[in-house]
Amino acid sequence: MSTPLPGRDFTAAPAFRTLRKLAGNAPDLTEPGVLDAARIGALRAEAAGWSLLYATQRVNEAVLKALSALARETAVLQRFEMLLAGEPLNRIEGHESENRRVLHFASRNVVEELPDPHPWPATADAVANARTQLERLRIFLKELEQGEVRAPDGAPFSDLVHVGIGGSDLGPRALYLALQPFLRQGRRVHFISNVDPDDAAQVLRGLNLAHTLVNVVSKSGTTLETRTNETLVRAALKKAGLKPARHMLCVTGAGSPMDDPQHYLRAFHMFDYIGGRYSATSMVGAVPLGFALGYDQMHDLLRGAREMDLAALTPEPRENLPLLAALLGIWNRNFLRLPTLAVLPYSQALIRFAAHLQQLDMESNGKGVTRHGALVDFDTGPIVWGEPGTNGQHAFYQLIHQSPTVVPCEFIGLRQSQYGEDLQVEGTSSQQKLLANLLAQAQALATGQDSANPNRFFPGNRPNSILMADRLTPRTLGALLSFYEAKVAFQGLIWNINSFDQEGVQLGKVLATRLLAHMAGKAPAGGEAQDPIGPALLKAAGLR
Amino acid sequence: MSTPLPGRDFTAAPAFRTLRKLAGNAPDLTEPGVLDAARIGALRAEAAGWSLLYATQRVNEAVLKALSALARETAVLQRFEMLLAGEPLNRIEGHESENRRVLHFASRNVVEELPDPHPWPATADAVANARTQLERLRIFLKELEQGEVRAPDGAPFSDLVHVGIGGSDLGPRALYLALQPFLRQGRRVHFISNVDPDDAAQVLRGLNLAHTLVNVVSKSGTTLETRTNETLVRAALKKAGLKPARHMLCVTGAGSPMDDPQHYLRAFHMFDYIGGRYSATSMVGAVPLGFALGYDQMHDLLRGAREMDLAALTPEPRENLPLLAALLGIWNRNFLRLPTLAVLPYSQALIRFAAHLQQLDMESNGKGVTRHGALVDFDTGPIVWGEPGTNGQHAFYQLIHQSPTVVPCEFIGLRQSQYGEDLQVEGTSSQQKLLANLLAQAQALATGQDSANPNRFFPGNRPNSILMADRLTPRTLGALLSFYEAKVAFQGLIWNINSFDQEGVQLGKVLATRLLAHMAGKAPAGGEAQDPIGPALLKAAGLR
Repeated sequence: MSTPLPGRDFTAAPAFRTLRKLAGNAPDLTEPGVLDAARIGALRAEAAGWSLLYATQRVNEAVLKALSALARETAVLQRFEMLLAGEPLNRIEGHESENRRVLHFASRNVVEELPDPHPWPATADAVANARTQLERLRIFLKELEQGEVRAPDGAPFSDLVHVGIGGSDLGPRALYLALQPFLRQGRRVHFISNVDPDDAAQVLRGLNLAHTLVNVVSKSGTTLETRTNETLVRAALKKAGLKPARHMLCVTGAGSPMDDPQHYLRAFHMFDYIGGRYSATSMVGAVPLGFALGYDQMHDLLRGAREMDLAALTPEPRENLPLLAALLGIWNRNFLRLPTLAVLPYSQALIRFAAHLQQLDMESNGKGVTRHGALVDFDTGPIVWGEPGTNGQHAFYQLIHQSPTVVPCEFIGLRQSQYGEDLQVEGTSSQQKLLANLLAQAQALATGQDSANPNRFFPGNRPNSILMADRLTPRTLGALLSFYEAKVAFQGLIWNINSFDQEGVQLGKVLATRLLAHMAGKAPAGGEAQDPIGPALLKAAGLR
Repeated sequence: MSTPLPGRDFTAAPAFRTLRKLAGNAPDLTEPGVLDAARIGALRAEAAGWSLLYATQRVNEAVLKALSALARETAVLQRFEMLLAGEPLNRIEGHESENRRVLHFASRNVVEELPDPHPWPATADAVANARTQLERLRIFLKELEQGEVRAPDGAPFSDLVHVGIGGSDLGPRALYLALQPFLRQGRRVHFISNVDPDDAAQVLRGLNLAHTLVNVVSKSGTTLETRTNETLVRAALKKAGLKPARHMLCVTGAGSPMDDPQHYLRAFHMFDYIGGRYSATSMVGAVPLGFALGYDQMHDLLRGAREMDLAALTPEPRENLPLLAALLGIWNRNFLRLPTLAVLPYSQALIRFAAHLQQLDMESNGKGVTRHGALVDFDTGPIVWGEPGTNGQHAFYQLIHQSPTVVPCEFIGLRQSQYGEDLQVEGTSSQQKLLANLLAQAQALATGQDSANPNRFFPGNRPNSILMADRLTPRTLGALLSFYEAKVAFQGLIWNINSFDQEGVQLGKVLATRLLAHMAGKAPAGGEAQDPIGPALLKAAGLR
């Protein structure tokens, strides 16, 4: 069948037992002398424009050594190279599974100045596909630019409605919102995702459909929500007296039911070796972002992602930014036993970035079986959540500081604002206030504070780390995206789970179809006797 | 001092021990015969237009009886009535604390048709204040309507920028986004919250400031983020050649540094007995929502909240919707030991509702001490997170279904869409698809599914409940808001923690001020020797 994975299983690695022991006596950040200036300067790593400060994690030399040993013993970097080399690691051994390669990396292996250090033969098709699609997009964007493709009244297309759900929505949306200052003048993108008909109704209101392109994204070409919303949008275009085929683009698998030039102005392709949640740098993200930002800035995003992809190959775990973050996450999840992870960007532009990471991490690593098909006997991916600071400080940080429930935090900061429109108030700029608050939170969580008033006591010793870059640009954002993709992949490879399938979404689909049959008045196959629960729920919900 | 609370402490209540025992043998929803049509029909309660379906929680008659006993033994309803009666329950006994009344209920005790069943003397001032402020707002909105107040060029004001953070932002924003179909023609509201200067820069772009009102909200009149953003907005107005005082409104405490008629077109008042996270129905929410929706629809929101406030007095726990939900939450948190709660609205309009609940619940109940000032020896409020379905299904539901980490879920559904613009695709409407998916998820989480393929095995037995109403209107939304406020208050009263302060936000403020002094080049009092950590963090972050 397929090459067995090198390395030990997670719980069989000697480092696992070492870490278990170390966790019983994990360093306490509130003890005098533990968190000092030397440590803060030393526990820091860099890659692709980003620094990771991790002095405020509950680690010491012994823990870091054991985490590095865990990386070696599980052969995580060799496993990662197998992924890059095109091994079909999207599989569960001995059971029916997707059995596919995992090659979202190929979608940014398109930067001439960053040549491939090891061009894997089994990925040549994926790299060629990425370049072909990107070139097709470049030409299309040029045609838009030069007015060869334009609205029926001859005006340029000003708006693009992006129709997709899950990975076809969250990544592109988060990136688009994060790059508002980089938009081409007069271009806007809108997103429709939910099968809730109010989502489309709300977005379509107030748009001049004559000047609007629509990009429909579904790899299979059959996603219920997306095809339903496509129908709604087509109906709206027709109602406005427009020809849908002159407005509609799609991104879909070659040969899917959607891959039909009659119905679309252009059909771009996505491929079965790129999962939805890893597709933001494929045509799924490149089409809306290319429209919004122009080709060059969109390409800069790919460049940033590629830079971090290359950094993820660094052999030494403590110098490999995403691997280091993955190991710190495993320390918090499996050894300190903390079930969640808050991602807290001090940047309003990253307003939807945590929602993207929620899918990336939880759909990848929220798994119950190992690659061998055994039920896991350890914790897998955490619950990821978060909102931008300083807003979160005025919302849920109360719990983070004083509740018995400990929440590991990943702060994200930028040294400069995007717009550079700032004002000195009381001697400091807003950007300085923002950053002072970020660092203050990291410090407060780590050190806590004693008080004679028990309600003003902060226990501290709450693990966190800080990611910092100069400014949020297409390039640093691309690197940040790739950082988290690699982090999640490393964790899945160490746990030896399949981070690339999502069987957990299937049962709901089956039951929804059955309930829909009830709602449409068609008795589903087998009749109600087989499923008394669905009809009872419909009745109790007042829907029958 | 103050009246002692009636009832037993949480862990001292006999029902606590009973529930501990019952948790060891909690009902398993996957066992044949546990979840059947009779149970689904029976475990259901109603109030103020909402139904709660809780057959898919891991409860049985014994558990429900013990939860009711817990409510009685902790005298939660008497405690709740003390709150309503104006007892200063915002306090920690024997320690310096806010020591205030908790009277957000008063802000909707303004509906003539819903008279006060028990007009508490100690709240008469709060009720009178609410009515006075509301009447002032009604008159101001009428003046806008009739053109007595208008833009410098004589046009009507079309836009309102709402400047606030935390409770002054999340609630009004969530409600505004939820009520888009009810907006008055030509009126829009925008929100600036973050001290990140890009937040204001982004919002102010593309606005015609001449036609824009600005509403600045800060109870103390000193909130750093809000006052900084106010300065930014005033500068933008001046730069546009406008007189800020002709555009600016504020909502602030009487006598605060902001309460100055010279600087504002109107100053509305908020009061120290209404916490930020409970302020959405006070002037904090009423000003932007009144502008957006008009007075009558805003008043309908208050009516809905008032209806649920009255329902929260229902003596029988199983017929008291918010109390029942509070008890089910305590069962999941303290006895099944589940640390998070996902709130999953099947309504795109509720896109930011979970962010509001995050603050409401986590800032209220993410506490570490009891009202007696003792460190808690039990779990308090959960980590609340969530995104709308069906979007979430394509994102993080994988973890919810198959990971070993169990996540209790609260689904929210509406029988009808808001816009009513829908289409039949494959025999059913989008709204039907949306609702079928909601019910299917509740069913799938409860029952799970066996499979020979371990990767297609769903363990099930995952607790969840469903809230349903007919349609999301100002009135049902007001009731939903009050439902969660009362639920959170009931949980805090049962745990005997103070749900109404937020001491956990203070340490970060102190440290941020110290870091800002470093950044501004001023050595803070005491010098660096006293805090080597701050300067070291600044250096490691590349900020010094």
